[in-house]
Amino acid sequence: MDDTRFEAEDMARRILRSAATASLGTLTPDGGPFVTFVTLATDIDGAPLVLLSDLAAHTRHLARDGRASLLMQVPAGDSDDPLTGARATVVGRLQRVSRDEADRARLLARFLARHPEAEGYAGFGDFSIHRMTVEGVHLVAGFGRIARLAATDVLVSPAVANAFLAAEALLLSALNGSAAGPPMVAVDPDGVDVAGAPVRRLCFSRRAGHPGEVAVLLAELG
Amino acid sequence: MDDTRFEAEDMARRILRSAATASLGTLTPDGGPFVTFVTLATDIDGAPLVLLSDLAAHTRHLARDGRASLLMQVPAGDSDDPLTGARATVVGRLQRVSRDEADRARLLARFLARHPEAEGYAGFGDFSIHRMTVEGVHLVAGFGRIARLAATDVLVSPAVANAFLAAEALLLSALNGSAAGPPMVAVDPDGVDVAGAPVRRLCFSRRAGHPGEVAVLLAELG
Repeated sequence: MDDTRFEAEDMARRILRSAATASLGTLTPDGGPFVTFVTLATDIDGAPLVLLSDLAAHTRHLARDGRASLLMQVPAGDSDDPLTGARATVVGRLQRVSRDEADRARLLARFLARHPEAEGYAGFGDFSIHRMTVEGVHLVAGFGRIARLAATDVLVSPAVANAFLAAEALLLSALNGSAAGPPMVAVDPDGVDVAGAPVRRLCFSRRAGHPGEVAVLLAELG
Repeated sequence: MDDTRFEAEDMARRILRSAATASLGTLTPDGGPFVTFVTLATDIDGAPLVLLSDLAAHTRHLARDGRASLLMQVPAGDSDDPLTGARATVVGRLQRVSRDEADRARLLARFLARHPEAEGYAGFGDFSIHRMTVEGVHLVAGFGRIARLAATDVLVSPAVANAFLAAEALLLSALNGSAAGPPMVAVDPDGVDVAGAPVRRLCFSRRAGHPGEVAVLLAELG
């Protein structure tokens, strides 16, 4: 893997993990594109999570055809040209996590750790978590700098994700027990989410290969 | 027309005229949704204008199927919940304005008045202005406040647009001749664009019915 490729993967992971909101593309009944605004979290492995109301157009669209696209951005900084900012288009299928799925409570808790402002309505009967099965990522690293990435370039492998899943609660309590400042509310191989309004994302300098590396990667961030 | 309807129309017009960027939804070759980031201007009548490169995926998508959707937003302000911000999804067809069309120079000039940062590449052979034929607008005025609007609720009528088209150059020179501060670079029935980095939009309190009303509507803004 060459350096450019590696940088593209790293940038795509950072955008995916840092974006608190996204533009969601779905298909209308006649197959046309329709773009709406959503809040965003990620599962341990990096799969996008959204909390959608059955009353919203995009949710009806997804029930008919699950194909979806999520545009995520980081601000352009000081540039006069908004197009210099990095962004990623994640393409895949958004699937509703039904009430009887074992993962539902965990995924909802993970979404709410990132979006505590949604606690007031997340329990309403018309809201449900949707999880994206990612098919690919189209990265625009700035004006004219484009890379196409596979899902496996961006997501965490199942083995590593499962190790973090098993360790997350213990890891968070250990990390929070030894640190000053606002508590960490979620951890994954790419970084941690820190409590606040809004919740703040800290990205590690590289992806952790197992939960035992998190303390060192976190200490690096100062 | 009831008050709620009127407020929705006014809000949709403000978002359309104020948004400097948008999320563009197009269709991939297999008919899936694909969302990308674009800079945005409007024609005199309010029709969205974008400047796209033939090298970009969205431009190839549009050449195959012109159906498109543009999500435009205003910031959520001080709220902790990003979903309290107003946004509009404009649905229609994006059509390339070819090099031999009479309107091309005018539309490009209007786009560049709003996006002077694009002057460095707007002349490259692979860039072309696309204009949207609007079919409808889906307004989300905040959490759960939704309105569906027709193109005619949001766009300026052809008669009024033509009157502004004929008067724009004269009107701008008259307004700039009598005002202190940075010059106005464009005018339409909903407001003016003021030079700066970024260009600043001033929206009138109501839509002007003819160019002669602009001076009064502008004076109201102070």
